[in-house]
Amino acid sequence: MPTHWYNIQADLPEPLPPPKDPPTGPSRLKALPEMLLTECLRQEASTERWIPIPQEILDLYAQAGRPRPLFRARRLEKALGTPAKMYYKAEFYSPTGSHKVNTALAQAWYAKQEGYERLTTETGAGQWGTALADAASLVGLRTTVYWVRAVHDWKADRRAFMKLYGAEVHASPSPETKVGRELLKRDAKHPGSLGIAVSEGLEDARADDRAIYCLGSVLNHVLLHQTVIGLETKRQFELIGESPDLVISCLGGGSNFGGFALPFLADAVKGKELRFIAAQSESAPNLQGEYRYDFADHAELTPMLKMYTLGHKKEMTPIKGDGLRYHGAAPLLSLLRSLGYIDTVAYPADEKHVFSRARQFIRSEGFLPAPESAYSVACAIDEAEKCKETGEKKTIAFNISGHGFMDMGGYSEVLGL
Amino acid sequence: MPTHWYNIQADLPEPLPPPKDPPTGPSRLKALPEMLLTECLRQEASTERWIPIPQEILDLYAQAGRPRPLFRARRLEKALGTPAKMYYKAEFYSPTGSHKVNTALAQAWYAKQEGYERLTTETGAGQWGTALADAASLVGLRTTVYWVRAVHDWKADRRAFMKLYGAEVHASPSPETKVGRELLKRDAKHPGSLGIAVSEGLEDARADDRAIYCLGSVLNHVLLHQTVIGLETKRQFELIGESPDLVISCLGGGSNFGGFALPFLADAVKGKELRFIAAQSESAPNLQGEYRYDFADHAELTPMLKMYTLGHKKEMTPIKGDGLRYHGAAPLLSLLRSLGYIDTVAYPADEKHVFSRARQFIRSEGFLPAPESAYSVACAIDEAEKCKETGEKKTIAFNISGHGFMDMGGYSEVLGL
Repeated sequence: MPTHWYNIQADLPEPLPPPKDPPTGPSRLKALPEMLLTECLRQEASTERWIPIPQEILDLYAQAGRPRPLFRARRLEKALGTPAKMYYKAEFYSPTGSHKVNTALAQAWYAKQEGYERLTTETGAGQWGTALADAASLVGLRTTVYWVRAVHDWKADRRAFMKLYGAEVHASPSPETKVGRELLKRDAKHPGSLGIAVSEGLEDARADDRAIYCLGSVLNHVLLHQTVIGLETKRQFELIGESPDLVISCLGGGSNFGGFALPFLADAVKGKELRFIAAQSESAPNLQGEYRYDFADHAELTPMLKMYTLGHKKEMTPIKGDGLRYHGAAPLLSLLRSLGYIDTVAYPADEKHVFSRARQFIRSEGFLPAPESAYSVACAIDEAEKCKETGEKKTIAFNISGHGFMDMGGYSEVLGL
Repeated sequence: MPTHWYNIQADLPEPLPPPKDPPTGPSRLKALPEMLLTECLRQEASTERWIPIPQEILDLYAQAGRPRPLFRARRLEKALGTPAKMYYKAEFYSPTGSHKVNTALAQAWYAKQEGYERLTTETGAGQWGTALADAASLVGLRTTVYWVRAVHDWKADRRAFMKLYGAEVHASPSPETKVGRELLKRDAKHPGSLGIAVSEGLEDARADDRAIYCLGSVLNHVLLHQTVIGLETKRQFELIGESPDLVISCLGGGSNFGGFALPFLADAVKGKELRFIAAQSESAPNLQGEYRYDFADHAELTPMLKMYTLGHKKEMTPIKGDGLRYHGAAPLLSLLRSLGYIDTVAYPADEKHVFSRARQFIRSEGFLPAPESAYSVACAIDEAEKCKETGEKKTIAFNISGHGFMDMGGYSEVLGL
């Protein structure tokens, strides 16, 4: 297990454009210390290459089952008849079902150290809220989750899961905050949005000195914590004397893609020939958007970040892989994309292709990927099929960021099971 | 990873009473070769101590994530304030969510070797059907699952999961078999039973030379395959220089309890001081029943087995931990119980105690046990609490046979989430 997180800011070919304030309105930059833990804010701007993981966080990682296995997909290779070697990282072994715990455990532990008693956050698909609820419970903090009502209302099982960890869960907009109450006055059944949920989480934390707000993607410190995935994977490849030619994962905001790819991108920026593909949805192909300053949230509460974006007000078709439906890509990954290190593929929003590919994977390998991870699987299989045509013996590494046990409805609907 | 399964028949203090025919009716013993794979039938009666695991099955085990971790429950110990050391085995890392894959992979591989093209089986809670569907898919066989209609109809997600593996799934009684058609004629919405589903699976396999029926619990060869759990655990304890004083798991038919405990029972029958507790439900406390010959199924199609039984026609209150609702305990475990090696505890059928204990575990350890495994957790915590009272520094080993991601409804209902 790695003892340090890897910070690619030390190795970037050019400096990362910093966050900035919009031309008008109150300063978002000055509000940042209220939005982020002190240690996370420090990590956000750090250019140290290796950031030590505190022993207590290493213990939490071990308890959450780290290091996680890297599997060779031998049966899948055989079924495809590809000369490629395919390896997948098992982030689906996470207690809550996704890679989100890697940063949740770190943030919860830092929050405890900084004297907070309660964490607040927003959640969309629900993976982040669950991970933070787990992490808070393990370190002895309370959590309050504001969950986009349109999702909250039909994911009863995931809601129960968060409550099982002891979290307080509110459909957002909620009567708990001023923002929420005002919206509910206009529409008592307001479906909510990620932006509104962010606003509620922030308002709640700001009104309580013992509470702090936590974020689960996009930002540098989140990707930093997630590098345990890629660092472990790199070590596992070394142990078997292999090295990937192709590194693949799905990308929404960028936390799992970044966590998996950044330690390999470190080699690429030093000149190693290595290809990276982000698997996305045509619903939100943010890496095919514009590289410019934009808000990270719908409600314009965050500073502006330089990133590939579809525009923070963009309407995006609902998909089963809801964790991929975000307008912008993490600034670190956006810079690397602008420099030509990261390719992207966007799959049709009907998701027939990705779920069919996931089914091929399941029938050969047995494990059930989350809808988001199905994009990673689809891209890996597509590349293995290309190797079959060209005869290339590539080594393909892909990350399966979560399992689909709580998302079977998506498979049923798309594949007509 | 163990290279051999452990067969306790070599070390039993007295021979295992063999299966026998009932006083009247056709011979069930003569029908056994139609019900079981040739290799499984051989293993059923074997008294060899160590049975080699074929390399291909070892490969399948590795692909299913074996060996699985043994976790120390440090945070739980601390939360309880117990002087006991608590260790849990992570069978919940199984691709299908339960320990059932350990025998499913073996049986599917043997079936392929013996020239079959299709497996048939029954399933109640659904774990066994899913495991066999997975295993069949991996070795390239088809599966037909007869699923008790009363469960089939509300477990849409698990049904989709089986189909994702390529299984054909029928609500039982079904129009596919003579038995099924006759029952449906009487009641078109017949809720079915495990006994009826067994009959359908058998009839289907008997009518097709290329098909064979597979069983997921109770029998010697099933427990044999499951000993990989206990053998790994024993080795893991050796590696850390520890040894359990108390071995705990839940028990329905006995496949997970046997798999976990038998390698440790080997030491107990040689005189080592070691206590075993089977965690059961008051709905089906079969180890508190009578030790006598009884049928393994409701419909009296199987030979009679000498076992602790509540009677094969016993009505049992429905519980969320449905995998524990079986009238008899595996003959191997029943013999060892009759000789005083295995204790049992039965928890109230309202399941409030077991689910509350599982919630304590989740809040300290993060992982989500299946409803059945919640019994194992409850028993381990109860014993750790006793150690707190007495000050005893016992080492407690317990098995978590599966995860609860597809059973959250049980938690919600019992705990009112």
